[in-house]
Amino acid sequence: MAETARHPEPRYGNRPTMKDVAARAGVGLKTVSRVVNSEPGVTPDTERRVQEAIDALGFRRNDSARVLRKGRTASIGLVLEDLADPFYGPLSRAVEEVARAHGALLINGSSAEDPEREQELVLALCARRVDGLIVIPAGDDHRYLEQEIKAGIATVFVDRPGRIDADMVLSDSFGGARQGVAHLIAHGHRRIGFIGDQPRIHTATERLRGYHAAMTDAGITVEDSWVSLGSTDPDRVRLAAETMLSAPEPVTALFSGNNRVTVTAVRVLAGRERPVALVGFDDIELADLLGITVISQDAAAVGRTAAEHLFRRLDGADHAPARVELPTRLIPRGSGELRPS
Amino acid sequence: MAETARHPEPRYGNRPTMKDVAARAGVGLKTVSRVVNSEPGVTPDTERRVQEAIDALGFRRNDSARVLRKGRTASIGLVLEDLADPFYGPLSRAVEEVARAHGALLINGSSAEDPEREQELVLALCARRVDGLIVIPAGDDHRYLEQEIKAGIATVFVDRPGRIDADMVLSDSFGGARQGVAHLIAHGHRRIGFIGDQPRIHTATERLRGYHAAMTDAGITVEDSWVSLGSTDPDRVRLAAETMLSAPEPVTALFSGNNRVTVTAVRVLAGRERPVALVGFDDIELADLLGITVISQDAAAVGRTAAEHLFRRLDGADHAPARVELPTRLIPRGSGELRPS
Repeated sequence: MAETARHPEPRYGNRPTMKDVAARAGVGLKTVSRVVNSEPGVTPDTERRVQEAIDALGFRRNDSARVLRKGRTASIGLVLEDLADPFYGPLSRAVEEVARAHGALLINGSSAEDPEREQELVLALCARRVDGLIVIPAGDDHRYLEQEIKAGIATVFVDRPGRIDADMVLSDSFGGARQGVAHLIAHGHRRIGFIGDQPRIHTATERLRGYHAAMTDAGITVEDSWVSLGSTDPDRVRLAAETMLSAPEPVTALFSGNNRVTVTAVRVLAGRERPVALVGFDDIELADLLGITVISQDAAAVGRTAAEHLFRRLDGADHAPARVELPTRLIPRGSGELRPS
Repeated sequence: MAETARHPEPRYGNRPTMKDVAARAGVGLKTVSRVVNSEPGVTPDTERRVQEAIDALGFRRNDSARVLRKGRTASIGLVLEDLADPFYGPLSRAVEEVARAHGALLINGSSAEDPEREQELVLALCARRVDGLIVIPAGDDHRYLEQEIKAGIATVFVDRPGRIDADMVLSDSFGGARQGVAHLIAHGHRRIGFIGDQPRIHTATERLRGYHAAMTDAGITVEDSWVSLGSTDPDRVRLAAETMLSAPEPVTALFSGNNRVTVTAVRVLAGRERPVALVGFDDIELADLLGITVISQDAAAVGRTAAEHLFRRLDGADHAPARVELPTRLIPRGSGELRPS
């Protein structure tokens, strides 16, 4: 921002106040307040003088005072599905940055992957007068939201599609998984295992669809025992991986359907003598140092795009609901380039 | 819960309703509503019959309907300092689990390490009628909260102390850092670098104090060039580490003051020929596979303890503010056991 460039960020407790602005401009406090709040009753000349004082001092309106006075600020709500999933960290922060740039607060909550909790949280946020909602849906019935949307609450679904007509911003789960599995096939693998999240989760089935597409493209018939969908609990994933790896004709490569699965898969493979190739969906911190090949989605871009759509709606955009699908990226780092042993 | 053991969790959309309870108990809907909401006007015998029907059907009161009707639910607020810091993931989830066990929703927000933003968010949550607040303070002036606390909003500070009289739950930053640095000294190091977060952050200075205590215990005089506090931005940390490692008499070991610093330190050290010992404060995902020795704080226990304190206050506990300090744990994995080269 130009303001930041011109003035060093004022220190907390030492910020210029409206009183400082009034003194510098040689006007009364009420006049400064009128200019700051765009109220009428100020001559153009006085307004210019106040504006110059504001610029010179680096004054910013104190939103906290406004909260106290009016009992509310502009705000949007974000409903995540798991507070502890690192994928949502950069996504949330990106949403927050866009919200902040629009002068709005972000309020988060988590459905903990429970459709009823999602509904409860969404309605609680609506009751707390958020202007808009970004929802990572846990449930697949969002009719409860239709009334809120009619009442003017803008809504964008993110990461997974919602089941009502609203904007949605997703990553290309199908295309990303297809590319990752094709990468393993290109390195000589045919017996490739897929371990993914629960089948009621849209991204899980999309990535499985990508796996099947890549296998079909290569003329490989997938055996039932190569595919395991379920919770991302480490014990479940470990058992699934070890079962595939200990079969009479074991898989020679694994495709893991998300970051939670990959973390456990890496641990399982680290304990084995025979190298097994691995490509994981989602990048993970320190995966570069461990040489883990991944299909990376840009979580920050997903969050940013969703928030920008939301604020466009709040600014009055009334075009038909948009569906945005952001591309993923293959990052080869070693584990996905191992040949079958 | 006993209820869950007796009844399989009812599927979403297929849950028993008050109408089902009324039919089974042979009473009217209003009677069921009275029992569920603990309203008067029901005979003990009827109440028992309704209760039996509730138990038999596995009926749970629909909180979403209550939100719609009353415009609010029980809720608490959590103010984090950085949505993308993985340390806060398990902490937030633990708070959420305790909140849920108490029938309350959790609403989060982030101060983005900005004291003014913290105040704005806290007041916005208060204006939205949360019953209590858990705050990871960014600022060091919380007088703005005194009025809210007087108005009945229970408050617990977590991770860092707040500057007003309220419950606080912290990790033993001083003791943990002291133990980690003593561990390096025990492995033969004397020239040990400390790279930490910004000095206005309580945990950063506490960990630096622990570093100095361990060095003093061992009779080592710390050189100025061995200590670097500042932002956890990767470029800043990289420069600090490389400066210490390239000095005429370089450090032989590093103590990194938090998870963000450790991640960059690991990358810097991975690129160097001569091995340098490293102990990091905070555990990191996959650190076990990379052999990174850490001082681990139990983020989930910190969150859980804070939430339990908050609900005890909400239940009426009026003892003097408590200060709880949870122990940390040294996890040796290799990087902290390297000897000076």
